Amino acid sequence: MASSPSITPHPPYYAVIFTSVRQDGDNGYAEAAKQMLELASEQPGFLGFESARQEIGISVSYWVSQEAIKAWKENAIHRQAQSRAKDWYKAFRVRVCCVEREYGF
Amino acid sequence: MASSPSITPHPPYYAVIFTSVRQDGDNGYAEAAKQMLELASEQPGFLGFESARQEIGISVSYWVSQEAIKAWKENAIHRQAQSRAKDWYKAFRVRVCCVEREYGF
Repeated sequence: MASSPSITPHPPYYAVIFTSVRQDGDNGYAEAAKQMLELASEQPGFLGFESARQEIGISVSYWVSQEAIKAWKENAIHRQAQSRAKDWYKAFRVRVCCVEREYGF
Repeated sequence: MASSPSITPHPPYYAVIFTSVRQDGDNGYAEAAKQMLELASEQPGFLGFESARQEIGISVSYWVSQEAIKAWKENAIHRQAQSRAKDWYKAFRVRVCCVEREYGF
């Protein structure tokens, strides 16, 4: 899990906000989530990842382009994991965003 | 705190991703955070809010437009809270994004 905000380049770049409510029970989730993060981190155009969960989980991944996000979405191993979504989540939303401005300290 | 993903309109709309690492100690944070969420929810153009914290905190607010985000950023009571950022956060990033696509169940 990330312990600090991701270091990202000057905008524009892309973010995928994944908001979810987990099913009861692990059902292989923890192992798959670890594997997916490792695999995502190796994809062309991956910039960073932030995640936290309480009542809901929010995971944000950062990417150089829409094309990089599309290629990751269509990755064969990732598609296998996507097919198990209802085993793991009662509800989820994926929001693909263009980051236009960024600031902070 | 949100217990389910926000219901948002068809894209495009805007998201503000706020990623932070807290300082030790409350320093008035909990009360201010509650007040800011209540106040944000009343602003024109506010669409929803999602939040979770473990090692890092991620809060995402959704808005109809960049103008609505700017108006909230410049709200006088919100500006007072912003001036206390270093009392509450070791680090934070704000990312203003245009949501281009959304899906889920």
